Amino acid sequence: MTVTSSTVRSRSDLCTAIEHELNGLISARTRAAAPYGPEFTRLWTLAGENVLGGKFVRPLLLMETYDALRRPGTPRAEDQRRTAISIAAAIELLHYAFLLHDDVIDGDLVRRGKPNLIGSLLAAAGGIPGGGIPGSEQKHPHSRLHWAQTGGILMGDMLLAGTHQAFARADLPHPLRVRLLDLLEHTINETVAGEQLDVGLGDGIIAPELETILVMCGYKTATYTFELPLRAAAALSGAEPSEEFSLASAGRHLGLAFQLQDDLLSTFGDPRRHGKDPFSDLREGKQTAIIAYARMTGAWPGIEPWFGRPELIIKDAEEVRRQLSECGAESFVQGLIDEQLREFHGLLNSATSEIPENARNVLIDLAAQLEGRQS
Amino acid sequence: MTVTSSTVRSRSDLCTAIEHELNGLISARTRAAAPYGPEFTRLWTLAGENVLGGKFVRPLLLMETYDALRRPGTPRAEDQRRTAISIAAAIELLHYAFLLHDDVIDGDLVRRGKPNLIGSLLAAAGGIPGGGIPGSEQKHPHSRLHWAQTGGILMGDMLLAGTHQAFARADLPHPLRVRLLDLLEHTINETVAGEQLDVGLGDGIIAPELETILVMCGYKTATYTFELPLRAAAALSGAEPSEEFSLASAGRHLGLAFQLQDDLLSTFGDPRRHGKDPFSDLREGKQTAIIAYARMTGAWPGIEPWFGRPELIIKDAEEVRRQLSECGAESFVQGLIDEQLREFHGLLNSATSEIPENARNVLIDLAAQLEGRQS
Repeated sequence: MTVTSSTVRSRSDLCTAIEHELNGLISARTRAAAPYGPEFTRLWTLAGENVLGGKFVRPLLLMETYDALRRPGTPRAEDQRRTAISIAAAIELLHYAFLLHDDVIDGDLVRRGKPNLIGSLLAAAGGIPGGGIPGSEQKHPHSRLHWAQTGGILMGDMLLAGTHQAFARADLPHPLRVRLLDLLEHTINETVAGEQLDVGLGDGIIAPELETILVMCGYKTATYTFELPLRAAAALSGAEPSEEFSLASAGRHLGLAFQLQDDLLSTFGDPRRHGKDPFSDLREGKQTAIIAYARMTGAWPGIEPWFGRPELIIKDAEEVRRQLSECGAESFVQGLIDEQLREFHGLLNSATSEIPENARNVLIDLAAQLEGRQS
Repeated sequence: MTVTSSTVRSRSDLCTAIEHELNGLISARTRAAAPYGPEFTRLWTLAGENVLGGKFVRPLLLMETYDALRRPGTPRAEDQRRTAISIAAAIELLHYAFLLHDDVIDGDLVRRGKPNLIGSLLAAAGGIPGGGIPGSEQKHPHSRLHWAQTGGILMGDMLLAGTHQAFARADLPHPLRVRLLDLLEHTINETVAGEQLDVGLGDGIIAPELETILVMCGYKTATYTFELPLRAAAALSGAEPSEEFSLASAGRHLGLAFQLQDDLLSTFGDPRRHGKDPFSDLREGKQTAIIAYARMTGAWPGIEPWFGRPELIIKDAEEVRRQLSECGAESFVQGLIDEQLREFHGLLNSATSEIPENARNVLIDLAAQLEGRQS
């Protein structure tokens, strides 16, 4: 991959524009929160810090694809581009709403080594002199965690509302607004279906078959991370449905590769680079493609007793990891990733009529980032 | 209050129209859920049963007010009325989304004596042969409850999305859509702020002062139950902002009276009529205006040891209730309700120019229902 200085410059300009839009959305809501008291204001202030500290992967993909697809010089081009930026920012709010509710569901207080919103609310509640109002802590020993997780649910709701508000307010012709609203509805349903599958797998409600796990990965992450920005860019730039369809297929392959890579990195990657606890998936008993494969091999009886044990010590965890690699699970999942990337490139080559060259370059650039990814 | 047979007939017609609209929204989503498997479909099927089994208080208030305010014979009157019905149905989805997330936050499995969505999901998961997949129950003893509560969070998200979808798809002139979207945004923020206050009071994070509790009641319930339908009706019928403002004020008084009455009925009412556990507020330690008043009296040291104790037995609970009445808390809260209703009637009488007679009658009818309420 060659990143030219003009690519770098335009990506940094895009980041600035997206950040500006998000900052406007969140500042207005933080101001509107003030009359409701300090706790409600804190919720918005912390959410703002979290949202604005992101890498804007999804809005950048939308805007780069949009800029690649749109025909310059059309009337109202600048107005239309501003609308695209507002939709891109809305997609970042959606991402954060999903993350927050996922953190509530998983009971997580940390993300990438730092307190998430819930962890920050918990810390702030602990900072109240005497631990909340006097005597409360004895009656409600878990009350601070409950309070913090409630904040996570409620902020997720407000960010989900904010996402829809941006889609609804976009000053677009009615058919285009409906096309985008259909896309948003489909995306949310599919992501929620994926989240439900993931939780059902973890809770032992749904059988952890490889096929189910692969479907879940696609629904839970690929749809909103890759398909949504690509399809929104197509719709906003006035692309034909066939173009949107090709972009969606390409996005699905990249998205699945990305999610599988995430699982591989979490288990076999270098924690100094990805920043996560290298054994948390094993300790939590996360049902990944790695585990689904291992379960079908003769190595499983040696792995199973350690899987999903929170108290797993490093020495034993390292041994489990070695067995997962030796039984072929690591190379099997790497093979799945390679297959997705092969299909992606095959699709790009065959869809020359559907995906214009500039947009193909955005996707090739993204695939190259995935291929070299260590975190 | 006199309910004429024409009122009854038109209310039943309205109920049918609202039910038809909600049924359409939910059936389409249940069909779209099918490809995602039986668990996702079950989630939508159960949600549909719950939503369609409601009393449609909020959409009925919207439509009755809309019909009272609108000028018949305007062009596209029937199209506009259909839009009003879609917004009315959306408000019912919003109500249910709030209820669901409230149930998750409170850990409730029952509402009005019947399993809520979470309780139904829990029962359904228990019905899986062997309790989920083999061996899972030992590893995850709380997994079924976690699974069911996750369903509550996720369905709340999808209903919140559905609410916004209906607002966003309404084929309205841009300024009117923005007026309705502003109203929806304000309503959600205020309701969430109220929910956060309520949880903060219950968790001992926020001090339970009477003023705070009254503010919380207004935010958490009055805003979306009374103000939202009244203001949406005003906006949709093209009423002046001053009319909308008067309706909102009237709605706030009724809403606060309604919520305070709810607290009184829960503690002092006849459980054969309201269908709730008569001592659940005491056992949960719910911070109501009744408790806030009692806390300021000499009776509190006798009440406090029993307050918020889940194991409170009926004999002791009856004694606490007697003390709450004797210390003056019951009549104090009744006085607050009377005051709100007095202000409501005063406002209606003074606002003859702002609120047309037909709309005044809708409100007077609603107030009469509140005054005679036993459940």
